[in-house]
Amino acid sequence: MENRVITISREYGSGGRMIGRKLAEKLGIHCYDADLIQRIVDKSGYSADYVKEEGESAAGGVFSTFLADRTRGLTTQDNLWNVQCQVIAELADKESCVIVGRCADYILRARADCLTVFIHADRDTRDERIAKEYGVPEDSVVRRRKEKDKRRAAYYQFYTDMKWGDARNYHICLDSGELGIDKCVDILAQLY
Amino acid sequence: MENRVITISREYGSGGRMIGRKLAEKLGIHCYDADLIQRIVDKSGYSADYVKEEGESAAGGVFSTFLADRTRGLTTQDNLWNVQCQVIAELADKESCVIVGRCADYILRARADCLTVFIHADRDTRDERIAKEYGVPEDSVVRRRKEKDKRRAAYYQFYTDMKWGDARNYHICLDSGELGIDKCVDILAQLY
Repeated sequence: MENRVITISREYGSGGRMIGRKLAEKLGIHCYDADLIQRIVDKSGYSADYVKEEGESAAGGVFSTFLADRTRGLTTQDNLWNVQCQVIAELADKESCVIVGRCADYILRARADCLTVFIHADRDTRDERIAKEYGVPEDSVVRRRKEKDKRRAAYYQFYTDMKWGDARNYHICLDSGELGIDKCVDILAQLY
Repeated sequence: MENRVITISREYGSGGRMIGRKLAEKLGIHCYDADLIQRIVDKSGYSADYVKEEGESAAGGVFSTFLADRTRGLTTQDNLWNVQCQVIAELADKESCVIVGRCADYILRARADCLTVFIHADRDTRDERIAKEYGVPEDSVVRRRKEKDKRRAAYYQFYTDMKWGDARNYHICLDSGELGIDKCVDILAQLY
């Protein structure tokens, strides 16, 4: 099997982004994460803050997406989604790479050369990482985790009509809390 | 990581049982599948047919389970569930092994030495396997697959209060259609 593109969906605080970076480094390919945002910004003309906010971890954008009036055509959010689809498809055409987040698994689902991954972990592992790695104050960690989970799930469901975190939507799902970050990287590198 | 017990939950037709057998053979440990049924029969005193039918792929048992009158205490189904829990816990105490189905992942969830696995595959792969390997007539394959999925999901949800097939309930989930049976066996053997 020769998978050229690996997409990583992940629970907030599961270390999915770090797995994506380490994996890309190991394979000698690019990991699109912050770079992906920049490309969407460049192509869409929207501000970086808006693109970040409207993404899967939107601060307020997801619910405005759901409530938007679509009777007059595409909303700003829908336009952004369309640009996102184009950018991700172009990247996948161009080069072997790892793409973190942004429903890339769904956007590239028809490609035979794509390996789709979901990373999750138990709550304690995630809370520790959210506090240590992301610097979220301890008394906000649980609220933050719950909010991020809800928003990612809602965004994914809205645009893909599939259930976020359902094993059947991915080729491989890994519990990074149980297996550890490096073991996850090893397994994925081997499948590439 | 030293996992002594590997539990395999699987979609009907995904090859999960074959993965369990090949994995156990590779690791030189026992795979409990039909043997598990026999042990439950021996311990419970119920007939083999009843135990099989009341299991996760019940022919009629699941819905009688849900509709049963529990105001007077445990039903026959609940008694069977309790025996199943005991048998699986005893196996896990006794020896390193692979256990296929029967909610073993849930029953052993508190054990640190247990690796929980979910195997799934796309519909076409499963339908082909259901016809070829299980000998189901072609015109019954789709109905049979849907029925089995519904029953397993309902049984799992009823006794575990968790969603069957949600990646977050398992340490690793694999798409056997995409990755192939042997690759799944390799990955799991490596994690053991």
